Amino acid sequence: MVPVGNFGIGGGEFVVMAGPCAVESEAQLLQTAEAVAAAGARILRGGAYKPRSSPYAFQGLVVEGLKLLRKASQATGLAIITEVMSEDDVDLIAEYADIMQVGTRSMENYALLEALGGCDRPVLLKRGMTATLEELLRSAQVIAMAGNPQIILCERGIRTFETATRNTLDIAAVPVLKTVSHLPVIVDPSHAAGVRSLVPVLSRAAAVVGADGLLVEVHPTPENAMSDGNQSLTCGEFRSMMADLRPYIELQQESRQLCPQLLVAGGAD
Amino acid sequence: MVPVGNFGIGGGEFVVMAGPCAVESEAQLLQTAEAVAAAGARILRGGAYKPRSSPYAFQGLVVEGLKLLRKASQATGLAIITEVMSEDDVDLIAEYADIMQVGTRSMENYALLEALGGCDRPVLLKRGMTATLEELLRSAQVIAMAGNPQIILCERGIRTFETATRNTLDIAAVPVLKTVSHLPVIVDPSHAAGVRSLVPVLSRAAAVVGADGLLVEVHPTPENAMSDGNQSLTCGEFRSMMADLRPYIELQQESRQLCPQLLVAGGAD
Amino acid sequence: MVPVGNFGIGGGEFVVMAGPCAVESEAQLLQTAEAVAAAGARILRGGAYKPRSSPYAFQGLVVEGLKLLRKASQATGLAIITEVMSEDDVDLIAEYADIMQVGTRSMENYALLEALGGCDRPVLLKRGMTATLEELLRSAQVIAMAGNPQIILCERGIRTFETATRNTLDIAAVPVLKTVSHLPVIVDPSHAAGVRSLVPVLSRAAAVVGADGLLVEVHPTPENAMSDGNQSLTCGEFRSMMADLRPYIELQQESRQLCPQLLVAGGAD
Amino acid sequence: MVPVGNFGIGGGEFVVMAGPCAVESEAQLLQTAEAVAAAGARILRGGAYKPRSSPYAFQGLVVEGLKLLRKASQATGLAIITEVMSEDDVDLIAEYADIMQVGTRSMENYALLEALGGCDRPVLLKRGMTATLEELLRSAQVIAMAGNPQIILCERGIRTFETATRNTLDIAAVPVLKTVSHLPVIVDPSHAAGVRSLVPVLSRAAAVVGADGLLVEVHPTPENAMSDGNQSLTCGEFRSMMADLRPYIELQQESRQLCPQLLVAGGAD
Repeated sequence: MVPVGNFGIGGGEFVVMAGPCAVESEAQLLQTAEAVAAAGARILRGGAYKPRSSPYAFQGLVVEGLKLLRKASQATGLAIITEVMSEDDVDLIAEYADIMQVGTRSMENYALLEALGGCDRPVLLKRGMTATLEELLRSAQVIAMAGNPQIILCERGIRTFETATRNTLDIAAVPVLKTVSHLPVIVDPSHAAGVRSLVPVLSRAAAVVGADGLLVEVHPTPENAMSDGNQSLTCGEFRSMMADLRPYIELQQESRQLCPQLLVAGGAD
Repeated sequence: MVPVGNFGIGGGEFVVMAGPCAVESEAQLLQTAEAVAAAGARILRGGAYKPRSSPYAFQGLVVEGLKLLRKASQATGLAIITEVMSEDDVDLIAEYADIMQVGTRSMENYALLEALGGCDRPVLLKRGMTATLEELLRSAQVIAMAGNPQIILCERGIRTFETATRNTLDIAAVPVLKTVSHLPVIVDPSHAAGVRSLVPVLSRAAAVVGADGLLVEVHPTPENAMSDGNQSLTCGEFRSMMADLRPYIELQQESRQLCPQLLVAGGAD
Repeated sequence: MVPVGNFGIGGGEFVVMAGPCAVESEAQLLQTAEAVAAAGARILRGGAYKPRSSPYAFQGLVVEGLKLLRKASQATGLAIITEVMSEDDVDLIAEYADIMQVGTRSMENYALLEALGGCDRPVLLKRGMTATLEELLRSAQVIAMAGNPQIILCERGIRTFETATRNTLDIAAVPVLKTVSHLPVIVDPSHAAGVRSLVPVLSRAAAVVGADGLLVEVHPTPENAMSDGNQSLTCGEFRSMMADLRPYIELQQESRQLCPQLLVAGGAD
Repeated sequence: MVPVGNFGIGGGEFVVMAGPCAVESEAQLLQTAEAVAAAGARILRGGAYKPRSSPYAFQGLVVEGLKLLRKASQATGLAIITEVMSEDDVDLIAEYADIMQVGTRSMENYALLEALGGCDRPVLLKRGMTATLEELLRSAQVIAMAGNPQIILCERGIRTFETATRNTLDIAAVPVLKTVSHLPVIVDPSHAAGVRSLVPVLSRAAAVVGADGLLVEVHPTPENAMSDGNQSLTCGEFRSMMADLRPYIELQQESRQLCPQLLVAGGAD
């Protein structure tokens, strides 16, 4: 179990992290934070440093964004997860964030992984675009060997030939990772789907295969979002999804208690 | 809804098709048929004609296998699904089978698809190894335009770089296909997983995302199976899995009744 | 070496097969045949039976197309290669064709492969869309074990995430196949490229890595072609390409004579 | 054209960069440098900072390696290319290297790309493991917009399902990149092949499709190499390869002069 604030990830609770792709303004962030907290999320996500995949793209509010995240945390009690993209930013971001997120494009940025090994914050490590699970675990090992064993793995879909979804959610990754490692596994249905309509149904699948939680994009007005608007839920959709998920999570937790080995073993003759 | 015997696929019931990869003997088939019927399966699967991917591979019992399938059907009341690999075999197999299965390697065998268009049996069409959903639907359209609209789509995993599983189950394929077509969608967790331990958990995922049923490999003694032993459940494992699945299926059916658009729409603000 | 008419494929000569994707009319075929023969092609390609990937697509002139191919052969001395898509068509097509082509979508159509094993014509076997070379060789083995050892392998590009080309030409496939098998290897630059401007340069690459020849789409008026117009060379472009290729082919043949093991071994210290 | 020392890349000369994967010792490096210089290479490659894909892997000689590279450059007149993996190392490495190499795993490390934008050394940018050419050009644009237009693109094979080679060399990438950008394009046949026997033949292909040069792994005793031994040529093999390549390069250069548009245009009717 990876402790975060006064709770833990991987200890039995299904932990939902939600929030906008990018921190855009105080109003946007606080409104989202209040809505996701009320709906049952425990952690607020929001990017302050954005991948500059194009020189014209929005590059985030940087330190100003980190301060807004902290403010939203104080207002709602939510813990904070935000992405770190450079080893030079690790110390600064660690002052504001409860969990350090490593993005898909950084899964094999070894300089960054080593710097995070020297940090006392938990790290959420996203699977690379076409990385195998073995490669994901190898990157986790680099962080751990560099001194930080508090690692959370994140399945967010892999690149395939399918175009109906932005990526292909590898739902089997959850039980496979839970079998071969003791690390918590979180599912990001938003980047897998690429469209908001599929997020709730993929979240259900994540819940019943034993994921330890979700990382979900939520925005008060997705049509105005500076990034990932198509795959962001509105606050109301997020609330509906959380209500829909509850009985699936409970069912999964019961069956885990009754028969902990069932998840993967499938019972015996 | 595609009617099969006295029930239907795609009409609300979660229909499980189970049985061995290949029909090997009367004892093997009958024992499996009785076990899967008792556990709640409605359809018996079993290959009589096998893909000869190697000249040394087992090629199936052919007509003898078809007769055993019919006999097992009479003994248990199960309907029969079996694979057809050549347009020359369509008429013969249609005498014995209730559903004609088109395998992954045949998804773009247009001569076979057209021949099935002239057949009065439902067709279960498996997604090709790296086919997109659009390509799958295009093959379905070839069958439909040739005269047979009774088509069941089957997601069975796609080839990716991941090696922990035989294929990558594209769980999002189910809601995507249900949104863009009216055809029933079945999930084959056995070929997706490649190992039996993952079959129950992938089946749970299939159930909660709205699949209309499963196609599962079951063998009385998988260690002796002539093909696909690694991914075949024992009869006891299948029974456990069916018991485990029941509440997930019920939950999904309730939520579908309450809010039919929820599955994909995710609720509204 | 696979003998075709009075010459052979895989015996040292670089053999070019050229012609339209589909046989559309007598005028179109004869004009193309004369042009490609004059430019140095030895074999005329042309589809009489077309893959019906959509029920609305052009389905070929069938027997009429076969007769036109034979007529063009008589007029020009070119041998004929054409695709067979159903085991039921093998005997008929073998009456007209010198080489039976198995398309990408049929590489794992075992009923067809077995039927071709009983045929006395050479078979050109195209690599499947995402098939490994081992899988290609396994399909070749099915034909061979069924009685027909006259097999020509064809690399035509594989499906990757790259979209600038229709497929990704796996140029290394040529030396790999030549090392692990004794079968001739032909390159289809047209389906690999998907655009005509890349065909000459990919053909150069094929020539210098030791391919035994090419399979190229040529059409008198590509803008009017019923299929694959974008990737078809005009007759003039084909003539220019053949002239451009000559010195590369000669160079490669010289080096093969000087140092037969150089191709793959790279010399020794 | 990107100027390097007293010559240029992309200006008509076919420039070969060769050397070991990792700088291991003074003896190893100097012996290789002398051999590759004598055979016609213009640039010495060698890793001083190695990707730490495993915490147990060799991590390079770091600054000591950079000094050895400089020493080898002084002894032979070769320019130096070496990899930079962290933005924090850019300034230091730029003191020793003539070309800064960005590895496959770093193609989307935007912090690194931006830091290289502020550096006055040319940058060789390798294509990511499954990156499209558009994504490669987007990363190049990030470097250029940050101030450094001296960029050399490198095709080094992409990840596909084929296992006979380590990666699949996308030979069409060369003419595609030359058409849509003015940047020089280098081919790395060593990482594409993964086995030394294929390096000479892939180099031929690179030469004839218009690449501006090669990046090749050479080691005096590959069987003792600390990394990439399987794909490293011996010094003698490299010499043989360079001799074999010469006429192909000349032929390509002649045809480029005669008909500059032929490379891609394929001639006209």
